[in-house]
Amino acid sequence: MDPYPKPLKDLISQLRRLPGIGEKTAARLALFIIGDRENLAGDLSRSLSTVKDSIRLCSACFTLADAPRCPICSDPTRDPSIICVVEEPSDVLALESAHSYKGLYHVLHGLISPINGIGPEDIRLSELMERLSRREVSEVIVATNPSVEGEGTFHFIARLVEDAKLPVKVSRIASGIPMGGELKYMDQVTLASALRYRRNAKDR
Amino acid sequence: MDPYPKPLKDLISQLRRLPGIGEKTAARLALFIIGDRENLAGDLSRSLSTVKDSIRLCSACFTLADAPRCPICSDPTRDPSIICVVEEPSDVLALESAHSYKGLYHVLHGLISPINGIGPEDIRLSELMERLSRREVSEVIVATNPSVEGEGTFHFIARLVEDAKLPVKVSRIASGIPMGGELKYMDQVTLASALRYRRNAKDR
Repeated sequence: MDPYPKPLKDLISQLRRLPGIGEKTAARLALFIIGDRENLAGDLSRSLSTVKDSIRLCSACFTLADAPRCPICSDPTRDPSIICVVEEPSDVLALESAHSYKGLYHVLHGLISPINGIGPEDIRLSELMERLSRREVSEVIVATNPSVEGEGTFHFIARLVEDAKLPVKVSRIASGIPMGGELKYMDQVTLASALRYRRNAKDR
Repeated sequence: MDPYPKPLKDLISQLRRLPGIGEKTAARLALFIIGDRENLAGDLSRSLSTVKDSIRLCSACFTLADAPRCPICSDPTRDPSIICVVEEPSDVLALESAHSYKGLYHVLHGLISPINGIGPEDIRLSELMERLSRREVSEVIVATNPSVEGEGTFHFIARLVEDAKLPVKVSRIASGIPMGGELKYMDQVTLASALRYRRNAKDR
């Protein structure tokens, strides 16, 4: 005898599709949603359906937007001569939270990864080159994660720009010890990178 | 400049209403939902809306159901002479998972708690007494949590049954050291309770 009514079981199995949500948490969330007197089920259902219908990708930078252009690309105060290249829309949100970058973005939606069968044509690289070919951009900052794929994609972009003989500087975000981090807990690759890319004290 | 499109912000704030979901987790879940290619947003939205429209309380025991009677109350193999009284529908699910109880349930939807202004009339106690008055029940097992409110509600029910002069035995689930627990980590109240309600070795 299964004591869960079917709609509740369905909700639990849908919630289990979310990352980090196991059987017990899904059941707890479902029971909370059912017991909520302020119509959480209705509000959440409506919000999900709106997101599904209205979220698209910005036609210029391919980050998440609810209009043809995202708020960043539509902002006349942003500097269109710098493009920061990232892997995913969440990277844009992370960088924006630092409030220190005033250029535009380009979201690749993936990284080149031969081991996973993802080649340059599977990510938004041709769209990036098309943007650069309009000659309005002076620098591309490649802010992919410091992983094998992130580094590989950086080198690939640098090579593409060089081969196309575009007057564009390609740079890479710094990698090293994070602020507040401790040397004794850092892995060898991070330490080697932090040493190799050390700054001159005279540089600001 | 806020980089989140409004529908995404809305979804994040709805997800934050769930227990144990903070700002970062809500953002992570929302981005996962948007990025999911198997229509998680649509499925979850539909499931929430179905739950909202179809889940009701069983007219007999007040646990969650998608029909006038829950599967347990509709099951002819369950013993209608025993009623297990619990605080919430999730307690029914927990007890059912033990596969050792074959009677029916009664969900109070709360516990008597004078400090929170919850009196006997605010929970499903009159409905319990009405079920008992039909003289089909021989035992009521009060399985509320072993808390101040749970114990108080147990004593209140025992008194009600006594005052109504019903031929019903009122019992209380055992409290003590949980299986696999260690005495050295138990609180004093649990230890005192485990000693007080010790079993005779001759009892099975």
